[in-house]
Amino acid sequence: MADAKKKIRVALSPALIKKEDLKESIVVVIDILRATTSMCVAFDFGVESIIPAQTLKECYAYKEKGYLVAAERNAVPVEGFDFGNSPFAFMTPLLKGKTLVMSTTNGTRAIYASKGAIEILIGAFANQSLLIDYLRFRNENIILVCSGWKYEINIEDTIFAGAVVYDLQPYFQLGNDAAMIAMALYKEADVRKSYFLRNSVHFHRLIERDLQPDVKYCLRRDTHPVLPYLKDDRLVLKSYEPQYLCLNKLLY
Amino acid sequence: MADAKKKIRVALSPALIKKEDLKESIVVVIDILRATTSMCVAFDFGVESIIPAQTLKECYAYKEKGYLVAAERNAVPVEGFDFGNSPFAFMTPLLKGKTLVMSTTNGTRAIYASKGAIEILIGAFANQSLLIDYLRFRNENIILVCSGWKYEINIEDTIFAGAVVYDLQPYFQLGNDAAMIAMALYKEADVRKSYFLRNSVHFHRLIERDLQPDVKYCLRRDTHPVLPYLKDDRLVLKSYEPQYLCLNKLLY
Repeated sequence: MADAKKKIRVALSPALIKKEDLKESIVVVIDILRATTSMCVAFDFGVESIIPAQTLKECYAYKEKGYLVAAERNAVPVEGFDFGNSPFAFMTPLLKGKTLVMSTTNGTRAIYASKGAIEILIGAFANQSLLIDYLRFRNENIILVCSGWKYEINIEDTIFAGAVVYDLQPYFQLGNDAAMIAMALYKEADVRKSYFLRNSVHFHRLIERDLQPDVKYCLRRDTHPVLPYLKDDRLVLKSYEPQYLCLNKLLY
Repeated sequence: MADAKKKIRVALSPALIKKEDLKESIVVVIDILRATTSMCVAFDFGVESIIPAQTLKECYAYKEKGYLVAAERNAVPVEGFDFGNSPFAFMTPLLKGKTLVMSTTNGTRAIYASKGAIEILIGAFANQSLLIDYLRFRNENIILVCSGWKYEINIEDTIFAGAVVYDLQPYFQLGNDAAMIAMALYKEADVRKSYFLRNSVHFHRLIERDLQPDVKYCLRRDTHPVLPYLKDDRLVLKSYEPQYLCLNKLLY
């Protein structure tokens, strides 16, 4: 029976999450440029846990207590902290075994808006195949939450959500129209990625600040096959052995 | 200078309207299945004004005062009123010169959420060419507000928003990523309309109630070239002479 399949839904903004769907769904928080990508990098480089912080005030308080802190505002690193939000900044042995505090306006908001879900995972192109493998293995309802930019929907998060829907559609049923919209966009974008990026608002914001290498890196698939999830208000690594190695053509 | 062009933005849900953009924008409220389509039909059949009502309680109050009332809930007409929400119901001489009260959960919410805009227009495939002509003539910033279904984004409103963006893109700049997403979807959908509809959640809701003819009619372009707009809490007809007859291949 086709209807017995679990549902995959997309929330194109945290404002569009339906609370009643949360408690029976696994959430994937998506903030491609650059928070969730950088989180995958940090875990791949051995960070033990990440505390997502919403305000700079929180960041200063953590900094005073001796934590490593990453903070940016409007795509610019905030002075006085250890890292900005560039994925390359986290490619350092300094992180090994440490707890990192990370301020990401939109990503953190998305995580808090998703509380109540069965589980909250971090997703990006960087960990796409592993993420898909895990979601297929768990076989629960899924909500892909795009962080966006304040109240705006953004194209890179939507494209990634579409990529995940596309990969999972043989095993799940589409649970809302946004899932179909995202998938259609992904199929268009896969052919004409540069066109879409040229027209993306946040992309321009990054390009103006000479961050093309960041953007390129954040769009690359399976660069950091790790699976961060939220446990007691901190992100930690999930230990998970891939089940469906044949599902994707790439790595592990 | 390309930047001197006015902006066209899309809000895929009333929850995503940015208040600060409203006061310098014309809003188009979109609820393809079926509220804004039926409004165009009613005006084309001579209704003088439409009062959008949000609750059934309001509707009963108006009915007692002797108004003609159209009310539906979950795609079913509510007993005791004069009309449901089917476009065919409004094709009657009974409406000529009358004021109609129309209860549309999502459409009405979208109208109220758009208050503060320069002007609030009603848009649907039914009045697409005239709407585009007028928006081009006015040359103000535009926000296309998709009513959606409660907190869900829906595909038919998004496709229509994309169609408007597509038609206007030579004259406006894309003001947010949602505008680009909607346009990409429209281009996909134009080729594979039936595929998209088969997968639409609201479409299924209507099909289950034998409303295929309604759906087909609501997707037809330029069936009712009228331009309703909000004036003092009522929708009335804008008298407007098309300026760019060459813009679209169709009618007037």
